[in-house]
Amino acid sequence: MSNLSITLAEVRALDRDDPLADFRDRFVIPEGIAYFDGHSLGPLPRQAVNHQNEVVEQQWGQQLIGGWNAGWIDAPQRVGAKIARLIGAKPHEVIVADSTSVNLFKLLVAAAKLSDRGTLLTETDNFHTDRYIAGGAANLAGLRMEFAPREQLAAGLGPDTNILLLTHVHYRTAERYDMVAVTDRAREAGAIVVWDLCHSAGAVPLDLNRDGVELAVGCGYKYLNGGPGAPAFLYIAEQLQERLESPLRGWMGHAAPFDFTENYVPAPGIDRFLAGTPPILSLAALECGIDAFDDVPMDAIWEKSAALFDLFERLMHERCPEMICISPRDPGLRGSHIAFKHPNGFEICQALIDAGVIGDFRAPDVIRFGLTPLYLRFEDVWTAVERCAEILSNRGWDNPRFSARRKVT
Amino acid sequence: MSNLSITLAEVRALDRDDPLADFRDRFVIPEGIAYFDGHSLGPLPRQAVNHQNEVVEQQWGQQLIGGWNAGWIDAPQRVGAKIARLIGAKPHEVIVADSTSVNLFKLLVAAAKLSDRGTLLTETDNFHTDRYIAGGAANLAGLRMEFAPREQLAAGLGPDTNILLLTHVHYRTAERYDMVAVTDRAREAGAIVVWDLCHSAGAVPLDLNRDGVELAVGCGYKYLNGGPGAPAFLYIAEQLQERLESPLRGWMGHAAPFDFTENYVPAPGIDRFLAGTPPILSLAALECGIDAFDDVPMDAIWEKSAALFDLFERLMHERCPEMICISPRDPGLRGSHIAFKHPNGFEICQALIDAGVIGDFRAPDVIRFGLTPLYLRFEDVWTAVERCAEILSNRGWDNPRFSARRKVT
Repeated sequence: MSNLSITLAEVRALDRDDPLADFRDRFVIPEGIAYFDGHSLGPLPRQAVNHQNEVVEQQWGQQLIGGWNAGWIDAPQRVGAKIARLIGAKPHEVIVADSTSVNLFKLLVAAAKLSDRGTLLTETDNFHTDRYIAGGAANLAGLRMEFAPREQLAAGLGPDTNILLLTHVHYRTAERYDMVAVTDRAREAGAIVVWDLCHSAGAVPLDLNRDGVELAVGCGYKYLNGGPGAPAFLYIAEQLQERLESPLRGWMGHAAPFDFTENYVPAPGIDRFLAGTPPILSLAALECGIDAFDDVPMDAIWEKSAALFDLFERLMHERCPEMICISPRDPGLRGSHIAFKHPNGFEICQALIDAGVIGDFRAPDVIRFGLTPLYLRFEDVWTAVERCAEILSNRGWDNPRFSARRKVT
Repeated sequence: MSNLSITLAEVRALDRDDPLADFRDRFVIPEGIAYFDGHSLGPLPRQAVNHQNEVVEQQWGQQLIGGWNAGWIDAPQRVGAKIARLIGAKPHEVIVADSTSVNLFKLLVAAAKLSDRGTLLTETDNFHTDRYIAGGAANLAGLRMEFAPREQLAAGLGPDTNILLLTHVHYRTAERYDMVAVTDRAREAGAIVVWDLCHSAGAVPLDLNRDGVELAVGCGYKYLNGGPGAPAFLYIAEQLQERLESPLRGWMGHAAPFDFTENYVPAPGIDRFLAGTPPILSLAALECGIDAFDDVPMDAIWEKSAALFDLFERLMHERCPEMICISPRDPGLRGSHIAFKHPNGFEICQALIDAGVIGDFRAPDVIRFGLTPLYLRFEDVWTAVERCAEILSNRGWDNPRFSARRKVT
């Protein structure tokens, strides 16, 4: 420890000087926990405790059906507009609805009709749900699936490529695509890109309008701290909205849901991508998660993410060199988590969880640590590496109780 | 009032003798309100207040990501099994997921592949979302839509009818189909029926297995009291489950969601109809809504619904003959609400709401009153008719503040 390039005192000084330090109070973080799993489930925003009570006891309990006219019915648009601010979109270009899977399905099937081209191209190692959903959507839309590794995607864009589906930040490695370059390249090739922002929104700098992004979906329960299974969002650039129709023609996407007209008339704008009645209790928690970003200097978020990464990578390298960092060192090329490989990654991850350091494991051998500047401290990184060093040095991971969990998680 | 066939004292005696009277305590019913809108949004189950706190503060707040292994991940199946008990299905034949609209889409597209027939038949006056969703699904599945009025549906079943989509209880009139007769008739004609149980589940007697029902969807927030926009359910008879594939191939419907296999492998059984991550806060409230049926004698629910209807119809006929009942008098032919027509129905409904009698209006001229035996009292029916009589006799509905609401609700 004497050879470390930084001391605990110096790490604590980073926390003292952190302009985001006070925002940690906006979240409930259990005592004694270093929570590095905000890329999977963000923690509870403190405001959500009272707000959930208000929605349950006052709105549902006392206003009953009247709640729909007191803030529920326009929640998909209202919360969407708040997300828009975080991702560089216009307020009416984002809507909250359904799950990421369902939203992706809607956008892919709708976008397929924008041209006569016959293939849907995606990254071989894209997040699996995206592959599955794309396969189902392609079947119905009459498209052929094509897969290409990351580095061969540009070459894979051909005269028959209709849609390019990409996840902006890779769920395992944290590799990040150059959004503007990819979007431009696809456009030149005559294809449209559908971006999955699950590991981007609320984490990395995004400016969808500036970067010419046309279609995107994203997750509410990761970096947006919307609660378990929070509804997802979708983004459609203004100029495309009237050219797309959702295959899921629910009444909430109708031009006049309560007129009960015989035929389906899509609502103007992005509202047409609503389907059924939105789950209000979950949506209310998501709104609190997004409100936790109020007054947060977004630039500071990304600066701190980079600083957390650097500290993590450096300390891990110095104390646990057998943990191999597989995330890009260049912040411009990555998202907001850091991933390490180790043959015993699963058991190490479990031992860390038992020691109060919550990351997560992704097969076959990767431990991910989410870097969430709103509530993580630099000292949490110190703690994580310290626990990891202990577990490695005393083989604390080599315990049947950890390997036994393989089937449960 | 002296000519009424029943006195208030006699009505109160009905409440005293009501075997379901104590169950009212399981719900939060605001003081001074007669709530006849449980067919649109069920009231707050008392248990949900603490349970929601527990899920938010303890599970999300303290267990964080660990909540998934402590009851969240299997909530769709667990809550589905509880609904199964209420609708005469096996526990593994019902699952909670998405919205009714999305579930209907999934089932229609999946069922279309069961035969080579080319049409999807539904009732002309089916609930509008069902018509819209069916239109979108038919487009993608290559089916042609056909519409027939209720009384011509049997004749409409032809050699090319693939799917017959029906709402069991009509949202406006409360007319109810003979489930077993329709199902048998469709089967003889070589078609499969998809039943929408939105206005049935938790309200009218259902025995899907006994009646040979193969496919159904239903709503969580009406008679099941699951909260605003609660997730919906779907039912697939055991013997069909392995023959159907969901067009929405989300990871939650994968055989091994966390193995991240390259190709989509549908989960065994009904689990394959899950798509994305379920909205846990809303699902938790739904579970409380369904738990409110614990130990309730289901026969008594339907008996009381019929008695509430008879009292409502009789009192309204005696005191407000200008309100024309459009719901079937025969309980075997109806659901669990009563609907009246009046040319000024909209304004009368608004005046009633202001007087604490909460029903709802459906265009062009129908007021609906939900009959929900778990928490309604016979005296509430007396109150509703009394208020209605006052409003009609003094033209209390004839007020610009009521007609002004036409655009808001």
